[in-house]
Amino acid sequence: MKERILVIGAVAAGTKAAAKMKRENSEADVVIVTKDQDISYAGCGLPYFIGSLIEDRKELVVKTPGDFKAVTGVDVWIMHEATKINPQEKTANIKSLITEEEKLFYYDKLVIATGASPFVPPIQGKDLEGVYTLRTIADAVSIRESVDQGSVKKAVIVGGGFIGLEVAENLRERDIEVSVVELAPHILPPFDEEMALYAQNYMQEMGVNIFTEEKVTALEDCKGKVCRVITDQREIEADLVVLSVGVRPNVSLAREAGIEVGSTGAIKVDKSMKTSVPDIYAIGDCAETLHLVTGRPAWIPMGSTANKMGRVAAVNLMDTGKEILPGVLGTTIVKLFKLNAGKTGLSERDAKKAGYPVITAIVPANDRAHYYPGYREIITKLIVDQETHKILGAQVIGEGVVDKPIDILATAISFGAKVEDIEKLDLAYAPPFSMAMASTIVAANVVVNKLKGKLESISPIELKNRLESVQVVDTRDEGSYTIGTIPGAINIPGGELKFRARELNPDKEIVLVCKIGKNAYLSYLTLKGLGFKKVKILDGGVRVYPFELE
Amino acid sequence: MKERILVIGAVAAGTKAAAKMKRENSEADVVIVTKDQDISYAGCGLPYFIGSLIEDRKELVVKTPGDFKAVTGVDVWIMHEATKINPQEKTANIKSLITEEEKLFYYDKLVIATGASPFVPPIQGKDLEGVYTLRTIADAVSIRESVDQGSVKKAVIVGGGFIGLEVAENLRERDIEVSVVELAPHILPPFDEEMALYAQNYMQEMGVNIFTEEKVTALEDCKGKVCRVITDQREIEADLVVLSVGVRPNVSLAREAGIEVGSTGAIKVDKSMKTSVPDIYAIGDCAETLHLVTGRPAWIPMGSTANKMGRVAAVNLMDTGKEILPGVLGTTIVKLFKLNAGKTGLSERDAKKAGYPVITAIVPANDRAHYYPGYREIITKLIVDQETHKILGAQVIGEGVVDKPIDILATAISFGAKVEDIEKLDLAYAPPFSMAMASTIVAANVVVNKLKGKLESISPIELKNRLESVQVVDTRDEGSYTIGTIPGAINIPGGELKFRARELNPDKEIVLVCKIGKNAYLSYLTLKGLGFKKVKILDGGVRVYPFELE
Repeated sequence: MKERILVIGAVAAGTKAAAKMKRENSEADVVIVTKDQDISYAGCGLPYFIGSLIEDRKELVVKTPGDFKAVTGVDVWIMHEATKINPQEKTANIKSLITEEEKLFYYDKLVIATGASPFVPPIQGKDLEGVYTLRTIADAVSIRESVDQGSVKKAVIVGGGFIGLEVAENLRERDIEVSVVELAPHILPPFDEEMALYAQNYMQEMGVNIFTEEKVTALEDCKGKVCRVITDQREIEADLVVLSVGVRPNVSLAREAGIEVGSTGAIKVDKSMKTSVPDIYAIGDCAETLHLVTGRPAWIPMGSTANKMGRVAAVNLMDTGKEILPGVLGTTIVKLFKLNAGKTGLSERDAKKAGYPVITAIVPANDRAHYYPGYREIITKLIVDQETHKILGAQVIGEGVVDKPIDILATAISFGAKVEDIEKLDLAYAPPFSMAMASTIVAANVVVNKLKGKLESISPIELKNRLESVQVVDTRDEGSYTIGTIPGAINIPGGELKFRARELNPDKEIVLVCKIGKNAYLSYLTLKGLGFKKVKILDGGVRVYPFELE
Repeated sequence: MKERILVIGAVAAGTKAAAKMKRENSEADVVIVTKDQDISYAGCGLPYFIGSLIEDRKELVVKTPGDFKAVTGVDVWIMHEATKINPQEKTANIKSLITEEEKLFYYDKLVIATGASPFVPPIQGKDLEGVYTLRTIADAVSIRESVDQGSVKKAVIVGGGFIGLEVAENLRERDIEVSVVELAPHILPPFDEEMALYAQNYMQEMGVNIFTEEKVTALEDCKGKVCRVITDQREIEADLVVLSVGVRPNVSLAREAGIEVGSTGAIKVDKSMKTSVPDIYAIGDCAETLHLVTGRPAWIPMGSTANKMGRVAAVNLMDTGKEILPGVLGTTIVKLFKLNAGKTGLSERDAKKAGYPVITAIVPANDRAHYYPGYREIITKLIVDQETHKILGAQVIGEGVVDKPIDILATAISFGAKVEDIEKLDLAYAPPFSMAMASTIVAANVVVNKLKGKLESISPIELKNRLESVQVVDTRDEGSYTIGTIPGAINIPGGELKFRARELNPDKEIVLVCKIGKNAYLSYLTLKGLGFKKVKILDGGVRVYPFELE
């Protein structure tokens, strides 16, 4: 008897698992069912389709059901919904969305890959014409069509997460006035505040209006179409509203079948992707996994993780080996116009919440040799355990290359790297690719200096909050100082500090600031040498300070 | 008494160590001596100065001696040569190259950072006008001036290593006819043959003439100027010759002082950068280190390593901590026009020579999502220990992003990663940065399939050598096949193979080829399913096959 495997869901995880099962065992009888018309589509590409960077809808479809069947041997039932799983009988009810007919499907093994769905907040007007979520190709096509027709002049994105911001960028690129409304204190909620504010200032400079700590209360109806977003603080005109406040795992089918749902709200699986019910696996955006730093359950839906889960499940399902997914780091990255922002592991906020003794550094550097044309600045934040010296997380932001340092750090964290290990990495160096001391290594050097007590610093956010109680000294040259500095800062260029130290009050805390922190560090050593006790440098330099935009 | 430290050499390692020593202990008396006029210059930028991508000589100088002194507090003696070290007396003879005066310098601790010098092969005509090496800014300025004057129409580069090829690119960009003569069987000698040949074909397509396995025997003299390069196989006209056959560590000063020189020919140091003689350290291009994979001594001069050595030595010299450099992986990267080629760890050749049981895979993939505009192909080669599954080395080549995967793999190798660990890395994914399954992960998947015996392959070089004895089947569509395929290959598109398998002789070895290996893998499974025994796929697909250019 051939083994019969049913896969519910046909985007990343489902198609990956199904195809891999057939490659592991061509005799297996593998069927995928999906409610959708498309399979294996590129969900992460949808914002770029709206922006017309991706021109044709077809480019978003990795494989049509026919191609997929031809290449993999997997049967695909599109427009079919699994309405019920009956684990005792090892059957699932499968309903055709065309004929409405429902059949009982006998399986030997079942894979749940039902994904996640956009959360739609229960606000008045959410069903109006012109109000969208963005999850499927159909969503993207609808938004693109309305933009193409020229009827959209003003758009509001509700939610300042990755997808919301990508949509904001793509609509802005199409000359639409875009506003983003975010409930949290800053956009990019997974990032720490100073890094997020850097991106927020940048987005505003790019012409995107951003309103934070603001709650959307209603969408106003003008003859059935949305025309205005009402928040707790203002009214914003809008011909187009995209609700992008996050996604929720689709677990009801599993829950109704008695399959355990974890503390994260996603389906609980072990490292081999098995659920609590025998012969049923769950993978992709509906399944949880472990966080590699904390060891706790985590639900961080990503296409990259979905593919790995699919592969692991397939090998275990076909019994052709033992595969596990140890967990994830929550590595994520986003491009916003020319700015790149990436993150891996824990944020400072989450690390502190989890009880780690945290030390951090924010270190600007160049992505390439400073004499190589086209180099750009990037800012690296490292979050390190003060006791074990292990890297807990990292965030990198800037117009330069950000994915490389994030991937270096994600790899290092996977192996339990200490910050001293990072200092010694033998990374690829040539002027078109890196500084001789790669930005990641420079950042590690700063953390090590701090761990050795060679340096005390203040975070940009803390400085902003305590600006009145400190003396801020800008150690750059007069020209840079004049162009712009921290509010209230006086200017004593580094070279003059030895002679002008008497201008400072030794009893009041002194904060030294410069462009990237290096000059301030040398000035710090000078003041310490002169006997000053209360000296700190501004972490990350002037560029990272959260200026208020006018 | 202040400690007095003498640093001999003022490029990367020397200046780094000196500056860091003063930051560790501002009381220390640190003096650098250098024969040169410049300090701290960007040696790796010199080819780009020749190509005018870097316009101004000043951009190559990281710091002038005056600036360096002002910022760091280190005394710099330019145009001063250390002619002798007297370890018993703790003195060094320092000679002014301007006044010819020689002084005795008393040191408490000494740092040798004498660097490396270009090896000049003992060929006739090597001292003619128009013949250069490239190591100092003065070299680069001379070459650039002769190019700027318009007198250079034809150039010959002797040596097809990184610097030679970068110079070739930069001269070609200035419309000079460029030929490269390399003694080894291929350019980029540290790379494995198929990867190097890929770069070689590319360079030839870019209009650079390349002659391998060819020895330069003389440079012809036309009225004191070079006019022709004579090899053992031809004569090549040349107004400019750059000798770039490698560098040698400058160890004579150390050797004469009784300091041990290692098996690599560079100064032997321990992990803290101490030489065999008390209170004498050696760092940078004149010092050896360990190879992190083999654990054996290695001399792989790189600016990135020089900086790390400088930092480690400084902390140990100032006794402000214990720092070590565990070793290096020989990570290197080069940009050649739009092609990037990187390497870390051992090559297949070196791994086999060192006795490792080696398994490899050559895997093409895209650097970004296939639907994201501007994505490019890269080819990853992984070299893995068949018994321990540890990654021994990697090479990546292509027009796409190469430094990122190399750095991911360099990081992983530093932690003793197994190939299965690579499969599970949580790397940053968004369409502008990566495929959902990153190229590095895809390559690891292929190695794991091979380790499990799910796949037998043949390397491009082996196929070329055994082309007569196998049946090559191109499994791509007819169109691709017609444009170009392996010599002698027949065309059976993957989907037709099931029905046309009878066209194949089951007793003769079958090699399946396609664009990147995936289609061939599916065809492999089909033929295996039909009972064929002698089936292999071509590692890396058609693109990596070393075609002969016409």
